[in-house]
Amino acid sequence: MKVADIRRVLIVGTGTMGQKIALQCARFGYDVVAYDAFPKSLENAKAKIPAFADDLVKKGKMTPETAASALSRIRYTSSLEDAAEVDLVSESVLEDPDLKGKVFAQLNAICKPEAVFTTNTSTLLPSMYAEATGRPARFAALHFLGVFDHNLADIMPHPGTSPEIVELLVAFARRIGQVPLVLKKEYRGYVSNAIWGAMNSAAINIALVDKIASVQDVDRAVMIHLGMAMGPFGLNDQIGLDTIWHVMQSNAKISGDPGAQAFADEFKRDYIDKGWLGAKSGRGFYTYPDPEYLRPEFLGGEPE
Amino acid sequence: MKVADIRRVLIVGTGTMGQKIALQCARFGYDVVAYDAFPKSLENAKAKIPAFADDLVKKGKMTPETAASALSRIRYTSSLEDAAEVDLVSESVLEDPDLKGKVFAQLNAICKPEAVFTTNTSTLLPSMYAEATGRPARFAALHFLGVFDHNLADIMPHPGTSPEIVELLVAFARRIGQVPLVLKKEYRGYVSNAIWGAMNSAAINIALVDKIASVQDVDRAVMIHLGMAMGPFGLNDQIGLDTIWHVMQSNAKISGDPGAQAFADEFKRDYIDKGWLGAKSGRGFYTYPDPEYLRPEFLGGEPE
Repeated sequence: MKVADIRRVLIVGTGTMGQKIALQCARFGYDVVAYDAFPKSLENAKAKIPAFADDLVKKGKMTPETAASALSRIRYTSSLEDAAEVDLVSESVLEDPDLKGKVFAQLNAICKPEAVFTTNTSTLLPSMYAEATGRPARFAALHFLGVFDHNLADIMPHPGTSPEIVELLVAFARRIGQVPLVLKKEYRGYVSNAIWGAMNSAAINIALVDKIASVQDVDRAVMIHLGMAMGPFGLNDQIGLDTIWHVMQSNAKISGDPGAQAFADEFKRDYIDKGWLGAKSGRGFYTYPDPEYLRPEFLGGEPE
Repeated sequence: MKVADIRRVLIVGTGTMGQKIALQCARFGYDVVAYDAFPKSLENAKAKIPAFADDLVKKGKMTPETAASALSRIRYTSSLEDAAEVDLVSESVLEDPDLKGKVFAQLNAICKPEAVFTTNTSTLLPSMYAEATGRPARFAALHFLGVFDHNLADIMPHPGTSPEIVELLVAFARRIGQVPLVLKKEYRGYVSNAIWGAMNSAAINIALVDKIASVQDVDRAVMIHLGMAMGPFGLNDQIGLDTIWHVMQSNAKISGDPGAQAFADEFKRDYIDKGWLGAKSGRGFYTYPDPEYLRPEFLGGEPE
């Protein structure tokens, strides 16, 4: 199978990531079937995908013509039977290895044998449900970061993935405007998420756990030191504090550390329960739409 | 004592950091005594400080007039007796708490009682030698990052530092063009160094220890994800791999982890022993003066 043989893509799970991946594939000429078992999620995607397209047009990143033809190539369905003709599956359902395994097992019975299965998991390893897919050699993680911008795609095979499939996924990632990064082994958090996670844990420890310096001071220091446009707490506000809290919860469970669980609970009380979810809710570590860190005076004056 | 009472600054230890701090103080109008016990180091500083000034003039960051008057305000000495009249001491000798304590004890006998003592240590805590200074209430860390650019100054008091001295150091840091960051407690690695260190350890583990992805892939991923102008390995090349190796050695000793020591030894063999010290030697993780990561194609194409 060559990359040119991939014509039809099935998106399984139409949450935010599924929506973005669906639009990105359609934008680059693929016929897309967007599937979700939950009618509400599907209805939501029918509204959000055109909104993402509008936004890209407004930002001058896509022509109105490309947007219109991309949207015409996406078909929405809540019936898995529509998966029979697809060449590649991109799965973004909940982060539960059993659920993912069951979904792939169902797809295995419906899809043609040569179809390639990929998972967009952020926190699991493909080997956890490779056997359940029924076609482990044709299965790997194809993990997206920001899809439209921050266009990095991690390709993480499990030990049973065929090298030919890895190559195919590299070519496919390029065709949909992603910079592919092939991991040589399975690794939790891939590459940039793992590095960002290490950085963010240190920042959270310094500002919120050990209270060595304020959130603003930490961000300012990192911005000056590493030349980033925003610091870790500004970034957390962009990601969404609900997502950050889910990661804290999951890390606390994996580590079994009661201190980590207590901190996650405190974080929920101090931010999530108050509705402070970051940029999208108007307040997180900073207030929006005009957060302090975007003001020129935030970094202090230049010498001379 | 007010910040306006500080007129004369003593730099103790004229390695690279001491040289930069000396020039920066002189540039902002302070009379500077640059002291080093080793005549060779002092001779080196006499050549390097004017070279730093030239470089700032060439980059348009300092006028030739400011450079000339700054250089005229720096006096070089290998006699501590010249410290009698100074108002503030900035110490950058080797990272050995006993040595630092001894140097400050000597200075305590020479300097006037109101003179403020500061340490530019990167890895130690001021409380380790606060008592040895003989004036713990007038002593704290005043730690510089890049001095001319990346102009962040960490101010880290130990539990015995007087609040008045912390305020004085904040005002002094601003007067020499730094963005001051006051730590609420002592913390190894301050703020931005600690966060950079966590990020860099994760990057080194992924690329060099676990060999999950190449150095280039790691840098590319971080650059795309965090919007940095270079990734962790590019940054390591700028810092100098000899410095990175010293930090690895020191961390291996502190942790007592034989794996960490073995890795530091391997790193020495693979880079340091070959003379691959980073940008300054023409080769590190990348080759210079035209490293891959500065080429536009390094990040791959943009979508559409």
